[in-house]
Amino acid sequence: MTDLRRLVILRVMPKPNHREKILSAGLAVFHKQGFHATGVQDVVDHAGVPKGSFYNHFKSKDALGLEVLESYWTAGGSARTELQTDGVAPLERIDRHLAAAGYDKNGCLIGNFSSELAGSDEFRSRLSELYKVWISEVAACIREGQEDGTLRRDERAENLAEFIIEGLEGAKLKAKVERDPAVLKRYRNSIRLVLQSP
Amino acid sequence: MTDLRRLVILRVMPKPNHREKILSAGLAVFHKQGFHATGVQDVVDHAGVPKGSFYNHFKSKDALGLEVLESYWTAGGSARTELQTDGVAPLERIDRHLAAAGYDKNGCLIGNFSSELAGSDEFRSRLSELYKVWISEVAACIREGQEDGTLRRDERAENLAEFIIEGLEGAKLKAKVERDPAVLKRYRNSIRLVLQSP
Repeated sequence: MTDLRRLVILRVMPKPNHREKILSAGLAVFHKQGFHATGVQDVVDHAGVPKGSFYNHFKSKDALGLEVLESYWTAGGSARTELQTDGVAPLERIDRHLAAAGYDKNGCLIGNFSSELAGSDEFRSRLSELYKVWISEVAACIREGQEDGTLRRDERAENLAEFIIEGLEGAKLKAKVERDPAVLKRYRNSIRLVLQSP
Repeated sequence: MTDLRRLVILRVMPKPNHREKILSAGLAVFHKQGFHATGVQDVVDHAGVPKGSFYNHFKSKDALGLEVLESYWTAGGSARTELQTDGVAPLERIDRHLAAAGYDKNGCLIGNFSSELAGSDEFRSRLSELYKVWISEVAACIREGQEDGTLRRDERAENLAEFIIEGLEGAKLKAKVERDPAVLKRYRNSIRLVLQSP
């Protein structure tokens, strides 16, 4: 292969590691600055890749945003496994989940995107699905606690789970404004109190 | 006065009604599209005033954003008066407040700005003050209910109030994603249940 031909191939073929760099840069900057305040140029600058490389891997900023949302959701999977730990009381599991999904000075990306991007049908419908899965996982844990008599039974598990996840999103928003993890700590204490069987 | 002189004065002096138009357009578009997704051009287009007029009245888009936040807060005052209605039980007053501050397909501007603008010290500190006032008004109402024995006493009124307002912001975010006022209705029902004396 001539040097020239090698050079042409290197320039034209998408570099797989560039894709990963762009995705992780997108997650960092969208989370920190917000989606609309961030341009493709900011993302590639942060990734340290040439701008042309972006469009080899992603159709648009929206396409990157949707993949970033998936990465964030997948990364949050470890916090959700807390809900299923064997041998731990349901109330404790919920508390551990809230702690693991807890304070971040940039808030929750799911909450941030809910606020900024609910106008887009693509983002909105994916966000709605993620909430649904998340809430059903929390509800399953609450149902166990209702069955063993440790958690209140005067409200459906699904409604309590929705209440908890919405409240968590609100608490993360408030903690971001206050720049104070104590907001999340108070939120967890309130949830403990609210969920316990009277 | 010559016609020419009158014309010069008309062109140079800021028109007070332009200020009102820009403020109300700013509220509408920032609330609908978000702050970062909206340019000064969008605001003046929506207001139907020339772009030059904007800078006669506002130093910057940030300056308009801060005034829009004040307008929104002031307009929310009527929902907060529900918390102080004489002759109505505290639980009922809180429920009426949550109903009045309820569903909006664009979410809550205070929540939206919390998500988008907490990176700016000016917005962040004003948002923090507004939450403080809001929470203290809800707390005063809860304290009354704790004193008359109708509301739970196992948690400080301030913590319950913070919990309610954070939860409301989270529920408004979720309702925006679902485009469904029923989210707010379920939230109000959960709060009724949670606040009542066991």
